[in-house]
Amino acid sequence: MDPSKLDQCQFREASTERFREAIPAVVNDLVQSCNTEACFDHVDTEPIPSRDAIVKIIHMALRILYPGYFTKIRVDSTNLHYYLGQEVTTLFEAISEQATLAIRHECLRHDLPCIHCGERGQEIAADFIRNLTNLRKILATDVRAAFEGDPAAKGYDEIIFSYPGLFAINIYRIAHALFGMKVSLVPRIMTEYAHSLTGIDIHPGARIGESFFIDHGTGVVIGETTEIGKHVRIYQGVTLGALSLPKEKVEELRYQKRHPTIEDEVIIYSGVTILGGETVIGARSVIGGNVWITESVPPDTRVLTKKAELIFREKEK
Amino acid sequence: MDPSKLDQCQFREASTERFREAIPAVVNDLVQSCNTEACFDHVDTEPIPSRDAIVKIIHMALRILYPGYFTKIRVDSTNLHYYLGQEVTTLFEAISEQATLAIRHECLRHDLPCIHCGERGQEIAADFIRNLTNLRKILATDVRAAFEGDPAAKGYDEIIFSYPGLFAINIYRIAHALFGMKVSLVPRIMTEYAHSLTGIDIHPGARIGESFFIDHGTGVVIGETTEIGKHVRIYQGVTLGALSLPKEKVEELRYQKRHPTIEDEVIIYSGVTILGGETVIGARSVIGGNVWITESVPPDTRVLTKKAELIFREKEK
Amino acid sequence: MDPSKLDQCQFREASTERFREAIPAVVNDLVQSCNTEACFDHVDTEPIPSRDAIVKIIHMALRILYPGYFTKIRVDSTNLHYYLGQEVTTLFEAISEQATLAIRHECLRHDLPCIHCGERGQEIAADFIRNLTNLRKILATDVRAAFEGDPAAKGYDEIIFSYPGLFAINIYRIAHALFGMKVSLVPRIMTEYAHSLTGIDIHPGARIGESFFIDHGTGVVIGETTEIGKHVRIYQGVTLGALSLPKEKVEELRYQKRHPTIEDEVIIYSGVTILGGETVIGARSVIGGNVWITESVPPDTRVLTKKAELIFREKEK
Amino acid sequence: MDPSKLDQCQFREASTERFREAIPAVVNDLVQSCNTEACFDHVDTEPIPSRDAIVKIIHMALRILYPGYFTKIRVDSTNLHYYLGQEVTTLFEAISEQATLAIRHECLRHDLPCIHCGERGQEIAADFIRNLTNLRKILATDVRAAFEGDPAAKGYDEIIFSYPGLFAINIYRIAHALFGMKVSLVPRIMTEYAHSLTGIDIHPGARIGESFFIDHGTGVVIGETTEIGKHVRIYQGVTLGALSLPKEKVEELRYQKRHPTIEDEVIIYSGVTILGGETVIGARSVIGGNVWITESVPPDTRVLTKKAELIFREKEK
Amino acid sequence: MDPSKLDQCQFREASTERFREAIPAVVNDLVQSCNTEACFDHVDTEPIPSRDAIVKIIHMALRILYPGYFTKIRVDSTNLHYYLGQEVTTLFEAISEQATLAIRHECLRHDLPCIHCGERGQEIAADFIRNLTNLRKILATDVRAAFEGDPAAKGYDEIIFSYPGLFAINIYRIAHALFGMKVSLVPRIMTEYAHSLTGIDIHPGARIGESFFIDHGTGVVIGETTEIGKHVRIYQGVTLGALSLPKEKVEELRYQKRHPTIEDEVIIYSGVTILGGETVIGARSVIGGNVWITESVPPDTRVLTKKAELIFREKEK
Amino acid sequence: MDPSKLDQCQFREASTERFREAIPAVVNDLVQSCNTEACFDHVDTEPIPSRDAIVKIIHMALRILYPGYFTKIRVDSTNLHYYLGQEVTTLFEAISEQATLAIRHECLRHDLPCIHCGERGQEIAADFIRNLTNLRKILATDVRAAFEGDPAAKGYDEIIFSYPGLFAINIYRIAHALFGMKVSLVPRIMTEYAHSLTGIDIHPGARIGESFFIDHGTGVVIGETTEIGKHVRIYQGVTLGALSLPKEKVEELRYQKRHPTIEDEVIIYSGVTILGGETVIGARSVIGGNVWITESVPPDTRVLTKKAELIFREKEK
Repeated sequence: MDPSKLDQCQFREASTERFREAIPAVVNDLVQSCNTEACFDHVDTEPIPSRDAIVKIIHMALRILYPGYFTKIRVDSTNLHYYLGQEVTTLFEAISEQATLAIRHECLRHDLPCIHCGERGQEIAADFIRNLTNLRKILATDVRAAFEGDPAAKGYDEIIFSYPGLFAINIYRIAHALFGMKVSLVPRIMTEYAHSLTGIDIHPGARIGESFFIDHGTGVVIGETTEIGKHVRIYQGVTLGALSLPKEKVEELRYQKRHPTIEDEVIIYSGVTILGGETVIGARSVIGGNVWITESVPPDTRVLTKKAELIFREKEK
Repeated sequence: MDPSKLDQCQFREASTERFREAIPAVVNDLVQSCNTEACFDHVDTEPIPSRDAIVKIIHMALRILYPGYFTKIRVDSTNLHYYLGQEVTTLFEAISEQATLAIRHECLRHDLPCIHCGERGQEIAADFIRNLTNLRKILATDVRAAFEGDPAAKGYDEIIFSYPGLFAINIYRIAHALFGMKVSLVPRIMTEYAHSLTGIDIHPGARIGESFFIDHGTGVVIGETTEIGKHVRIYQGVTLGALSLPKEKVEELRYQKRHPTIEDEVIIYSGVTILGGETVIGARSVIGGNVWITESVPPDTRVLTKKAELIFREKEK
Repeated sequence: MDPSKLDQCQFREASTERFREAIPAVVNDLVQSCNTEACFDHVDTEPIPSRDAIVKIIHMALRILYPGYFTKIRVDSTNLHYYLGQEVTTLFEAISEQATLAIRHECLRHDLPCIHCGERGQEIAADFIRNLTNLRKILATDVRAAFEGDPAAKGYDEIIFSYPGLFAINIYRIAHALFGMKVSLVPRIMTEYAHSLTGIDIHPGARIGESFFIDHGTGVVIGETTEIGKHVRIYQGVTLGALSLPKEKVEELRYQKRHPTIEDEVIIYSGVTILGGETVIGARSVIGGNVWITESVPPDTRVLTKKAELIFREKEK
Repeated sequence: MDPSKLDQCQFREASTERFREAIPAVVNDLVQSCNTEACFDHVDTEPIPSRDAIVKIIHMALRILYPGYFTKIRVDSTNLHYYLGQEVTTLFEAISEQATLAIRHECLRHDLPCIHCGERGQEIAADFIRNLTNLRKILATDVRAAFEGDPAAKGYDEIIFSYPGLFAINIYRIAHALFGMKVSLVPRIMTEYAHSLTGIDIHPGARIGESFFIDHGTGVVIGETTEIGKHVRIYQGVTLGALSLPKEKVEELRYQKRHPTIEDEVIIYSGVTILGGETVIGARSVIGGNVWITESVPPDTRVLTKKAELIFREKEK
Repeated sequence: MDPSKLDQCQFREASTERFREAIPAVVNDLVQSCNTEACFDHVDTEPIPSRDAIVKIIHMALRILYPGYFTKIRVDSTNLHYYLGQEVTTLFEAISEQATLAIRHECLRHDLPCIHCGERGQEIAADFIRNLTNLRKILATDVRAAFEGDPAAKGYDEIIFSYPGLFAINIYRIAHALFGMKVSLVPRIMTEYAHSLTGIDIHPGARIGESFFIDHGTGVVIGETTEIGKHVRIYQGVTLGALSLPKEKVEELRYQKRHPTIEDEVIIYSGVTILGGETVIGARSVIGGNVWITESVPPDTRVLTKKAELIFREKEK
Repeated sequence: MDPSKLDQCQFREASTERFREAIPAVVNDLVQSCNTEACFDHVDTEPIPSRDAIVKIIHMALRILYPGYFTKIRVDSTNLHYYLGQEVTTLFEAISEQATLAIRHECLRHDLPCIHCGERGQEIAADFIRNLTNLRKILATDVRAAFEGDPAAKGYDEIIFSYPGLFAINIYRIAHALFGMKVSLVPRIMTEYAHSLTGIDIHPGARIGESFFIDHGTGVVIGETTEIGKHVRIYQGVTLGALSLPKEKVEELRYQKRHPTIEDEVIIYSGVTILGGETVIGARSVIGGNVWITESVPPDTRVLTKKAELIFREKEK
């Protein structure tokens, strides 16, 4: 037969075989590597919290916290009660499940029995939903703070729909509530979801007062033990972080205060870095753009960097 | 009966009841809080623009602006006409709907009657699609600018498929067209979508000339009243922002020029901050990395910060 | 007929016609513009790699590299072999397909015949999966580096589930493997996916040793020809970039080393910029926050910027 | 170049062109045929009821009529009120929309103005939901009738979950309610949905009393003007139809009684055909299998066909 | 204000209110009716087997029983083991879950404790999968019987892909296996799924030998206690049913043999009805079309109805 | 430890292991059984036509044949051309693909080379779409026949939307076109899809003239070599079949005429069976309900069965 007439398909078929033959050896290697200590796997374990389920919890909670904003269902006085009732029930169940998985995961990790994991998961969910009305009120102060702080804001709706700063604060406040109930994994997965969508990285352990506003926000980092008062406003690229530390001290610093304290009504402009657990920015102070601070600032102070001298040189054309 | 034989399921059931009982009180509180002024809700209102629908509009527009790049459907000369015809029709309808919702929302917010909302929504959509060919041409200049500005670029396709700077500019140009037609909410939701995916925050109100290139882009902020000429190139972390302003002045500054003007062929390297509505960077100037500018720069100027002195200290081991 | 009885629907209908009539002219313009050189399109061409398919490849690979972490399927010793077998087979096929598309695209772009494109695509896929066990081992060093470097880390699982730095490194290592096999488009689409979710922009061409840790990460840029040793740790806002270059030199610099070299065990704090292909940061050096470096640093050195003098001014109230 | 080396892909490409070239002429023909009277199209018209939406309405209604049976959501005394509230609201809206579309379609078809279509659609939906509790009660009699009539039934749940007869009756009763309100298209689409899943074809216009049971059901046909009393039981393959009629009489018979009347407690075994608008099967009668009836049967009668003589012939092997 | 200028939308709004007001009363009625004995609901109960999950189980099982026929995944000797391994694992889990739900449902219905429900569910799943290879072999005999019995069959693949008779037998054999393990609800939901797609209603309790063929099949009914030998062939519209019985005897007949026995190699043509638990059709007999049988037939017999005399009358034109 | 405190979860875990251990042996058996001749599998073969893809083709074709009826997209004179253009292109591609798979499957089954499979697939698709306008015209005659034949029909739209007879004829005509081009598997999968939804089983090989109407339709069987003239009307339960044949003759009858011929304007009422390849029902004849015919009927004849004598017996109460 004329080889030029050979069906390409059969040819492809043959070559497929050649390369596919690599698969079994690869699979054996991978299975083997699951039995070594070198690699990480979750084989032969209980189910773990699911990122997808946690993201759904966030959006359920937002639908409850801002009724009517994020739903395609029409909500009016006829069905508001039913709508919220169903959403709260579903949220209760979803948090129960993920919290139980997180607790069980933690128990097993520490070789503890897990007798009341399911019950504790539901207790957490009940505590969380009891706090929802309160959460609504605090978030309303954050919305107002954004409107008052940004001359580009055209109205509250624009802020609620599109401001990344508010989105990150919403999620932080949800995650912080669960962090306070010692739920593992879940709060951090929540704030990292916000981080991935906004570039704003707030650790769920931080404590932040009402009327908080972050403008633009990309690059903001707020560390685990940061404390922030009321009516604080910060801009993009602000880091509230820990001082650098030698590797051997990492372990002893876990769970200690390593991040700064920001008092009420402070404004921190873009690119500012404030480091250290003992650093306190006093109330009503204003920190100018790009300032680097590792020491405390008294209240009612304006801090600027001495301007770096600019060099204007005519461009050779 | 031996209590050790008790079915766990029934036990779980009992405890469920205990915690679920929290739900009705929570729901009542939430319903109550919707009747107060303290919280935000969209109850008893007309439907509002939908973020999901707006994101779909963006991707529809991109499929039209770059035919064949972002579709699984094969597009060739046989079906190009049909393909574009269907896409443009669908885009027309989708914009009509969201624009109408946005206009109606705005009317109701100002207690104005909404007699021609639907008609105006369609007029906007018609104007938008009439502008598509023009938009294609401008975006083609942006693609070329990226290729000329980035030595890592392997070809035009790589830029169109994967450059976040181009993605953000694409969306900005779409949103800016709608912003110019005074559509509320929608343009900002569009640019915040780009912001969330690229870390590049361009306000839809900014005016930007052709052949614009943003490299890397994370942390770029371009404020509402910024003006940018042709052939401008900027890098990650650049802020074109407003000077800080006392809270009581926020209201009077809404709608005024607060952000800088960048003339043709300017290059702005990473981390630069340029602030203020009267600040003008003259044509062909180059602003070096990390410079902080609040005053105008004449054309054909190279601006550098006097280098901060570096301290080299031998590390104690 | 009483005009007050006019059906709004019919009215809307009429106005629809008026605006929809714009569509055919728009479509003709767009079709026309596809025949000019001014615009970009992919009409009359072979299919191109699909971003959606590439994102699926990333998640398939992650499910194999961290068995049991990112799946809803229970994986235990009974089915581990089957599970990995199916995942590896599917991954092999998915990479074969996308790699073939990328190669074909490249061939056609250079007017080369594409006789062995399909075969080469499978060869690449086979090479990729052969490398999976090795990849698992390297990634395990990155997980451990994160735990050792971050006092906020509560355990390995939290890192694997939620640390954006690790996520970006995972994807970079996958993309780098394909980059090394000269697959076009795909590696960059992968790292830009990571960039969009983490704000961390690592070019797939960079070379990075084991035990690499990026904390927070937003705004990190690592250029195409960067080389990074083992046990390096970097923070948010770090740029490892190229020196600025005049437009006319862009072309000659494509494919040359333009980005710095970072040796083993270096730590680079937030906001640091290191530029230039000849810049080498010697082993075990520590670069303090916000430092701007364009020259080499010897090993075992601590580099700081001389602190800018702060100005503390009492705020007028 | 050796032609045997020609890339198959390019070859395929070429041949594609040849066949794809057929498309434009085909499209022109089809467009042309839409302008003739020969063919049916819905071009340049208002939207019409959607089969998908109508199927969703059926399943919504079933979730309300049998609370907890067909939902993945746990329904208990805590959330029953919310659950039913949301389901009823959604059902109200869905029926409003489809009923409005059906009415509008009917108006336009008769060149009538459509001023109150939307309002009438909602009135229908309100009437429908007011009837839901009543519907539940009637359907409960049907469930009980199935249990009492079928020795294979293991319990009520099995009937509700899996009996096609009950499924068809459920849908018939829903459709009949809408038929009674003169909604066009929708009721028939509903009963044909049941027909396609069960082989039971009940016209929505038929009138059927409580405690109705159909066993097996495939092939059952119940015509538009059939009347069926209470506690009637029928088997597979039963036709309650019209007498054959000459073509020229079709038009005058539209809307007249053409199908039989079945009084209370009648049993009709499989394969029976009962035809004619004046045929009445008297109460408590039993019609044996395969009987063909075109005349009335008095009450309390057992009707059998004289058995056809069977021929038993030894099979030649 | 001129009423002709009234915005239709606001008008619609008003009328909406009027009709929506019906909702709360309707919901209250429905909630009330859940507390009465008149209606059926599943409120305050454990979850019940899910029809969707059961349909998925059927298709999973079919993918295992006919490897490569019903999957988009390429199955070859490289991955056959992995493929089957994953499918069997998933099937095991899915059956475990649904069987457990069915058992629990049965326990609760009889007020029995449910201590080992979960364990028993898994035991059933394990028994089921152990039987899979055997099931494959029996089904292969059914495929061959179809090919041998139908002159229209073009090959085995056509039968496996498209013959409704085989589809119904496949599902019957799966359901019968679970029926034999006393799983409630699930087997009947399975066979009713087949019934809805094929018009073939085989009760899962029937016992059917190998090499069974049903041609066309619509309207076939095979009752719960039917017994069918090997190599039997039947056509559309065949009923193997129970004799009619007075209502008061229904209860005592539950669980007794009420349906006929069909011995090996019998052929039953279309429209035949065979009734009664004591009726036996002897081996190798052939029952001609439309015959009605309530008594036994000896082996090797051909049974015909004495042809009804046909009347040929010239049609008046 | 008190056994009553034992965590149920761990207990469940243990028992899981016990049953899951069954899996590997089962998988091995199944793999083994794939290597025997006893069972059917599609391992190590080329991809085969996909039922899902074929069902999509049907619905694509229906959207083209009845423009605007089955789409959510508004179709009007502005976009009709684009709409049909895109639908026809997509249909062309989908048929090309499935036809190619069917041809390849047939080639491989007969050990023939498959050099022009892809080209032939496209030729078939081109022929098919060229026939679409013609198909529209024939189907329009079927719609009109339904309206004229059924006094319950309220309009053409009701017929197009909901009449199962028309649905089955639509699909038959599509499938018959492909059958005529000798595409294997696909046509039968199409008509079995119609069969499963309507209970009407028309073999794609049958030849049926224009203006064909099937009322109700459940149980209709029309065999492979049936020929039906114009303006024929049939009712539910009609079989146009083959005479019974001994098993050893099955093979020689494949591909021969085995089913009846029905001439123009014949009406066949419900439950009629007409068998045999030489049976001809002459034009304009009417066959009364339940008649069983195995011989030809001259034109203009009315055929009835001599009515079986009915026995009316008073029911004992």
